[in-house]
Amino acid sequence: MSSQFRTVALIGKFPNAQGGTPAEILRDIAQTIEGQNCQVILDEMTAQASALSDWPVRSLEHIGQHADLAVVVGGDGTMLATARQLARFDIPLIGINQGRLGFITDVPLAEQAQVLPAMLRGEYSEERRTMLAVRVEREGQLIFQTTAMNEVVVNRGSRAGLLELRVEIDGHFVANYRGDGLIVATPTGSTAYSLSAGGPLMHPHLGGFCLVPIAPNNLSNRPLALANTASIVLEMIAGREASANFDMQSLANLQHGDRVRLERAEQSPRLLHPKGWSYYDTLREKLHWNQHNCA
Amino acid sequence: MSSQFRTVALIGKFPNAQGGTPAEILRDIAQTIEGQNCQVILDEMTAQASALSDWPVRSLEHIGQHADLAVVVGGDGTMLATARQLARFDIPLIGINQGRLGFITDVPLAEQAQVLPAMLRGEYSEERRTMLAVRVEREGQLIFQTTAMNEVVVNRGSRAGLLELRVEIDGHFVANYRGDGLIVATPTGSTAYSLSAGGPLMHPHLGGFCLVPIAPNNLSNRPLALANTASIVLEMIAGREASANFDMQSLANLQHGDRVRLERAEQSPRLLHPKGWSYYDTLREKLHWNQHNCA
Amino acid sequence: MSSQFRTVALIGKFPNAQGGTPAEILRDIAQTIEGQNCQVILDEMTAQASALSDWPVRSLEHIGQHADLAVVVGGDGTMLATARQLARFDIPLIGINQGRLGFITDVPLAEQAQVLPAMLRGEYSEERRTMLAVRVEREGQLIFQTTAMNEVVVNRGSRAGLLELRVEIDGHFVANYRGDGLIVATPTGSTAYSLSAGGPLMHPHLGGFCLVPIAPNNLSNRPLALANTASIVLEMIAGREASANFDMQSLANLQHGDRVRLERAEQSPRLLHPKGWSYYDTLREKLHWNQHNCA
Amino acid sequence: MSSQFRTVALIGKFPNAQGGTPAEILRDIAQTIEGQNCQVILDEMTAQASALSDWPVRSLEHIGQHADLAVVVGGDGTMLATARQLARFDIPLIGINQGRLGFITDVPLAEQAQVLPAMLRGEYSEERRTMLAVRVEREGQLIFQTTAMNEVVVNRGSRAGLLELRVEIDGHFVANYRGDGLIVATPTGSTAYSLSAGGPLMHPHLGGFCLVPIAPNNLSNRPLALANTASIVLEMIAGREASANFDMQSLANLQHGDRVRLERAEQSPRLLHPKGWSYYDTLREKLHWNQHNCA
Repeated sequence: MSSQFRTVALIGKFPNAQGGTPAEILRDIAQTIEGQNCQVILDEMTAQASALSDWPVRSLEHIGQHADLAVVVGGDGTMLATARQLARFDIPLIGINQGRLGFITDVPLAEQAQVLPAMLRGEYSEERRTMLAVRVEREGQLIFQTTAMNEVVVNRGSRAGLLELRVEIDGHFVANYRGDGLIVATPTGSTAYSLSAGGPLMHPHLGGFCLVPIAPNNLSNRPLALANTASIVLEMIAGREASANFDMQSLANLQHGDRVRLERAEQSPRLLHPKGWSYYDTLREKLHWNQHNCA
Repeated sequence: MSSQFRTVALIGKFPNAQGGTPAEILRDIAQTIEGQNCQVILDEMTAQASALSDWPVRSLEHIGQHADLAVVVGGDGTMLATARQLARFDIPLIGINQGRLGFITDVPLAEQAQVLPAMLRGEYSEERRTMLAVRVEREGQLIFQTTAMNEVVVNRGSRAGLLELRVEIDGHFVANYRGDGLIVATPTGSTAYSLSAGGPLMHPHLGGFCLVPIAPNNLSNRPLALANTASIVLEMIAGREASANFDMQSLANLQHGDRVRLERAEQSPRLLHPKGWSYYDTLREKLHWNQHNCA
Repeated sequence: MSSQFRTVALIGKFPNAQGGTPAEILRDIAQTIEGQNCQVILDEMTAQASALSDWPVRSLEHIGQHADLAVVVGGDGTMLATARQLARFDIPLIGINQGRLGFITDVPLAEQAQVLPAMLRGEYSEERRTMLAVRVEREGQLIFQTTAMNEVVVNRGSRAGLLELRVEIDGHFVANYRGDGLIVATPTGSTAYSLSAGGPLMHPHLGGFCLVPIAPNNLSNRPLALANTASIVLEMIAGREASANFDMQSLANLQHGDRVRLERAEQSPRLLHPKGWSYYDTLREKLHWNQHNCA
Repeated sequence: MSSQFRTVALIGKFPNAQGGTPAEILRDIAQTIEGQNCQVILDEMTAQASALSDWPVRSLEHIGQHADLAVVVGGDGTMLATARQLARFDIPLIGINQGRLGFITDVPLAEQAQVLPAMLRGEYSEERRTMLAVRVEREGQLIFQTTAMNEVVVNRGSRAGLLELRVEIDGHFVANYRGDGLIVATPTGSTAYSLSAGGPLMHPHLGGFCLVPIAPNNLSNRPLALANTASIVLEMIAGREASANFDMQSLANLQHGDRVRLERAEQSPRLLHPKGWSYYDTLREKLHWNQHNCA
C-alpha cells in the first residue's frame, strides 16, 4: 500500500542560538518519506539553516499551496508557529519532537523511521485545533489583526499597577477584571500559560475558549470556559504599559479604550497523530500524573 | 397576543422543616398564569404541602405528559430535581426564585406578575442543559442507574484514607486519581460543588463535562474539561466507605472494582429565561464580581 | 485620665487627582486630639495639600523625632507609606480610614470623635508589623536599598517570555522558579497582591514571610511560608524587561545575574488598634466571608 | 570520638499486609549502631514483627524513659506515629527511609552505614517540630483528648451535605466555614493533606498552624496561617456523619455543638538530620520542582 500523500514538505526547528534542526536529522526523515514514494520538498528557512540542498527548496506559501502534508521537526513552539502560518491552506501536519515529548509534536525523533511510514500509508487519526481570530481596535479603527493558536494575553507592564479590563461576551457585559491581566486560551493553549495561571485543561474535542484571569484582585474571578461561538471583547479601562500577546507576537502600549476582539478563526489547523496516540497519555506523561506529591 | 402555552403546571418548593411554598404565593402565580388564558394544574406534592385545591391536582408524571410548561417556584435545588424528573418529557421550565437569585431560578418572585405574562406570550430565550447518564456496575452487573443535572461525585468516607480511582475516557486510560474524590460536573453544576473544588465555570452553550479532583494527592491533577461525546469510567481501586453521589441521590459503600460509567444523557432539560436575561449577570451577582477583595 | 501622648502628629492622604484629605476632616480630627490635651502638629505635605495652618507644620523627619504618636488619615496605601517612612523612629501609628474599612486603617472616620479619645487615654492594643529589608546587587555592588512593608515582587516585562529566578534561602538552594515572577510578602502584604496570586493569609502575630510564585510553570511550585529569620536571595537567571517592586517603589531593567537580597528589617512599625478591634473581623468584612458563592 | 548516645533504640516499620521492616535490615542498622559503641535496644512490636531477639527487647514506654536516641526505620507514617508517642519523653529521633525519600525520614537506608556513625558522633542538626494538643468537648464535657503532629481534620460524611463549622481564635469569632471540612495543619503537616487542599508549605522554623478549608463554599475562604500561640475552637454548626481526624486516629459522629479545641502541645518532637541536610532539597525532590509542566 502506498502513501496517501504525494508531496510532503519538511520543515525544521526555527534556528535560534543553539541552531535549527541539524542536516543529518532532516536527511534521515526525508529518506523515510521518500521510502514511501513521496516527493520531499524543503522549507526555505529550514534549507538555509541546515545548508541542505538535496531536495527542492520552497517557500512556506508554496508549501501551503502545493504540498499534501507537512512534517514539522522541532518542539511545540515550531509546530505552533508553522500550524498557524499554514492554517489558511488546510494542509495536514505531523509533528516530530526533537527533544522531549511535546503536546503537539507527538512522534519521537527516535521512532520516526517506524512511525512515519505507517502514517504516510494512512494509519493516523486526524484532529482539528481551533484558533482565535484577533482584531485590535483603537478609536474605532482596526490597528492590528492576527490569529493565535495557543492564547491571547492582555497584561500589565512590570512596573505598572493593576490592569483593568472590561469584558463583554456576545454583547453582554461580563465584568471588569482587575489584576495582572487576562488570558483567552484555546484547548491547545490550555496546557500552556493558561494552566500556570489556574485554568483548566480542555480537551481539543470540546473546542471553546477559556477566559483565565491572572492574579485577579477579586478572588471569585475564576476561569470561565466558553463555547466556540463566543465573541469576546476585552476593553482597556485602566493600566499603564499594557500589551497584548498572541502566541509569540506582541502589540505594545495598549491605550485606554483599546478593544481586543476575539472569536473563533475560520481556519483550524489539522494535526495527524499516529494510530494509538492518546491525548491522555501525553497529559499523563507531561504533567507527571504517575507521581505522588504529598506525604 | 395570547399565550403559547395552554396548560401550565405549577410546582412549589419541596417541603422541608421551614415548609414548602406558601399557598398565597402559589395563588398569586396561578392567577398571573390564568390572566394569560392558560389552564393551571397543580403538582400533587405542592398541593398537599400548601393545602391548595383551587386547581386540578396532578402527578408529576401527568404533568410531564400533558402540560405545555412547568413553572417551578423555590430555589435551585427544587428546580434541579424537577428538571431532572421531567427531563424525559421534554417540557420547558421557568424557575421563580422564592429567596435570593438562583443560577437556574432567574425570575424574582417579586417580579412574577410583570415577567411571567411576557414569557407566556413568547418573550423568552430557551436554553437546553446537558445531563449525565450514570450506570454503576459491580462485577459486570448493573446495580444502579440514574441521571444527574449538576454533578456526579465519588468520594471517600470521612474517616477513610485516600480514595483511588482509575479513570478511563473513550477507552483510553487517563490516570489513577488519589485524593478525597472526583467530581464530574455539567456546565449547570460548574457553579456548584465543582467550583468549590477548583473547577472552572462552564457556559451552558459550551456543553461538555468537567472532571475535577477533590484535594488531589498529585498537585498537577488539574480540572479537565471534556467534550459532550466523552464516555467516562471511574473505577474504585482503593478506599473505604466511599460513596457515589448524583445531585441529591447517593449510593453508599462502593466496593473495590465498582465502575461508575458516565456519558451525556439523551434528555436535556429546557429552561426558559426572560428576555434580556444574561448568564453573565447571574454570575456577576452571585459571585460578587463587582466587589474588591485584596488590598 | 489624660492622654499618654503629648505631641500627636496628623498626617493626611497623599494628594492625588482627587485631592488629599480635605481641611475640614483634618480640623475635626485635630480638635478631637486637642480635646485630650495633646498638642497637634501637622505634616508639611498634608498642610500644603489642605492649605491648613492652624497648627505647627513639621517635616516627617521632625515628626518621627519629636511626636509621640502619628494619626494617619486616608487608605491603606497612605498608612503603608507613612509607616514605612517613620519606621526608624519607632513612633506608634493610628490609621483612620477616609473611605471603606482598610486592613491597617481601622478607625472609621465617622467614629473618630468616639474612638480616638479612648485610644489617646490608653485604650488600645499595640501590634508590630515586620518589614523586609531589601538590597539589590549587580556584579557584587549594591545598587539599590530600601524597605518594604507589604511585599517585594520581581516580575517579567509584559511582552517578555518567562522569567527565571534562582532562589536561595539561608545559603541553601531552593529552586529555579520559572513563570511571571515571585512575590515575597510580609503578613501585612498577605492580604494584598500575594493573596491574588494564591498566597495564604498570614496573621501578623505569626511573623515570617511568604514566597509566592506568580503563574508558575511548575504546578507544584506552591506558596512557601518562611520564618522571620530567613535570608532570601532571588537571582535573575533568565528574562527580559524584568523589574523589582517594593511596595510602591520600582527598580526597572533587572539584568542577568542581579541579586535581590531580602531579610527582616530591623524596624517594625507599631500600629495601635482600638480596644476590641479584631484582625478576624477585618478579614471577614473585607473578604466577604459572610456571603455564599456556590450554588 | 565516640557516640553522644549510650543507649539507642531501634524501631521498625509498623507491620502491615506487606510486613514490617525485615530482620536483615534491622540487623544491619543495629550493627552500625553497635559499631559506635552504643547499646542497642529493640522496640517490642518491631522485635515481634521481625522475630529478632539478638538485642534487649523493650516497650516504647521504656524506650522513652531510658534510651538516649531512637532510630526509626520505615516511612513518614511510622516516624510520625513514633514521634508523637515518644514526644513526652523528649528523646531525639533519626528517621531512616526504607523506600523513597520521606519528608521526615531523611536518611536513605542504602546510606545508613555511612551516615549513622557520623550522626552518632554528633554530626547532625536538630530541629523541633510543633504538635497540636486537641480536646473535644460535648455539652461542656471533655470526650476525647490527643495530640497530632501532622494535622487535625474535621470533615463531612461522604453522603452528607455541607459541613458548617464556626471558628473562633483566641476568643474572637473568625467565620462560619461551609464546605467539605477544615484542616488545621502544623508545618510538618503542611506537606501532606493540607497541601492537597491548597494550603501553603510552611517551614518548620516558622512554627504556627495553618487553617485550610476543604472545597469551601465561599471562594474567598483562603488558607489562614496562625501563630503558635493561637487557641483555635472549631464548633459543629451543621452537617451529618462528620468526624474529626488526628493524624491516624479518628473520632466519628461529631454532633451539633461539639467543640474541637486546638492549641500548641507542650511537647515538640526532636528530629536529628544529617549534616548538610536541607529542608529545601527534600521539597525540591519530593515535589519535582526540577521538572517543567506547562508547554
